[in-house]
Amino acid sequence: MNPDRSVFFVSDRTGITAETLGHSLLTQFSLDCNPVSLPFTDSPGAVDAAIERIEAAGRATGARPIVFSTIIDAGLRNRLRRVNAVVLDFFDTFIGPLESELGMESSHTVGQSHGMADPGAYNLRIDAMNYALSADDGAIVRHYEQADVILVGVSRCGKTPTCIYMALHYGLFAANYPLTDDDLLSGRLPEVLRPHRDHLYALTIRPERLAQIRAERRPDTRYASLRQCQYETVRAEGLFHQEKLPFSDTTTMSIEEIAAMIIQTRQLPRRLY
Amino acid sequence: MNPDRSVFFVSDRTGITAETLGHSLLTQFSLDCNPVSLPFTDSPGAVDAAIERIEAAGRATGARPIVFSTIIDAGLRNRLRRVNAVVLDFFDTFIGPLESELGMESSHTVGQSHGMADPGAYNLRIDAMNYALSADDGAIVRHYEQADVILVGVSRCGKTPTCIYMALHYGLFAANYPLTDDDLLSGRLPEVLRPHRDHLYALTIRPERLAQIRAERRPDTRYASLRQCQYETVRAEGLFHQEKLPFSDTTTMSIEEIAAMIIQTRQLPRRLY
Repeated sequence: MNPDRSVFFVSDRTGITAETLGHSLLTQFSLDCNPVSLPFTDSPGAVDAAIERIEAAGRATGARPIVFSTIIDAGLRNRLRRVNAVVLDFFDTFIGPLESELGMESSHTVGQSHGMADPGAYNLRIDAMNYALSADDGAIVRHYEQADVILVGVSRCGKTPTCIYMALHYGLFAANYPLTDDDLLSGRLPEVLRPHRDHLYALTIRPERLAQIRAERRPDTRYASLRQCQYETVRAEGLFHQEKLPFSDTTTMSIEEIAAMIIQTRQLPRRLY
Repeated sequence: MNPDRSVFFVSDRTGITAETLGHSLLTQFSLDCNPVSLPFTDSPGAVDAAIERIEAAGRATGARPIVFSTIIDAGLRNRLRRVNAVVLDFFDTFIGPLESELGMESSHTVGQSHGMADPGAYNLRIDAMNYALSADDGAIVRHYEQADVILVGVSRCGKTPTCIYMALHYGLFAANYPLTDDDLLSGRLPEVLRPHRDHLYALTIRPERLAQIRAERRPDTRYASLRQCQYETVRAEGLFHQEKLPFSDTTTMSIEEIAAMIIQTRQLPRRLY
């Protein structure tokens, strides 16, 4: 039986940090809640509006709301703390210990973590994303020289979303090579990839799942048939073993997990935070 | 003068939560550090390897390393705490208070927050991303019916990255309409967008910045000239005012900030965490 709690993420900027941390904690509880984000809560008026909304939700559910907050300004933070709710503020909790450990004051500047602190980083991020899009599905093979990593696998095994994710979050130049029928037949690495062997990472997926994903795009086709998916994945994995390529089965992995695994295995640089 | 500290993000899964927390905190200090992520630290052996690496870094810098960790398993957490470093464990800090507040035990299951807890969510995410890619640059206007939001603006003002980001992180179906010369000349909303007025959000950007971005793609073109960028942005903003479209100047905003602003303004649902 799930308690019915209202949960809020309150932040002076995007709320991404509060949401990420709050959600990580909530996943540890079988809590039936529908969290509400209150970003850009960066003035006394905005804080008071947030307090009103939170307390209204508390009255509605009859239980103290839970508030995960990331508010830099101590004045606004104290103002928020007057709310009739449980307030877990991340800065409150950790800034103190860090200040004493580092022997320095924190800057108390807002919007550093997901703001545009560095335009260079912004350009890198956009360049990396444009790269992922333009180098998608092996379209522009000549781009492979620039690639931090080239994902190899059969169609719809998760290459493109992973490339885009790695571009957006790590500023990595991730290209993408879909194995062709000829590649699968030969069971060997295509010529075009051989010079880039150290930058390859292979993805595979269980045939049942692959058939499901393909069927959503092209139902009732040979392409989406379980038999075809079985053939392709078996051949692909044979090739990966044969060529000793590091690979992951993406069937039960999230994009984040796939990316983290690739980055760790290939020791790729993290260009963005 | 920056102290030279080694910083580590240690996690039993992707490390994203530890990185988000740690990075948000570090942005508050003028600390000269190059953080190292140690994801998938999910066994006694992996913890011991992490400890060795952390302590080696500490000896090298001559200062206690700072470790931001998110490790669910209490045994592994205690094992890590033996490291000669400052350990700020996120679950350690917040799970206790939450358990007592909620009157329930936490599940202690690993990899919930950025794992693939829900395949439905995964499909939604991929569908949303495919939508963002296929509906990019007004290519497939008929898709507008499905759109949660349609971003309107001149070429290179940040529409596409924002659409893809909203798809990946919120499961939102975000389409994209680049204003044409005719639109800018007429100063009125194109027919095709009129039925979707409530789903429109406009983006603008300072001409100097736009010229810079365009020049990186197509240097020495009329398209990238400051004069052309000034013309387009002035006409576009005139259109936004005329048609009373909500809009943001993306010049100094990160993709995260633009997305958060759109979601808040248009009250869009958050379909993913």
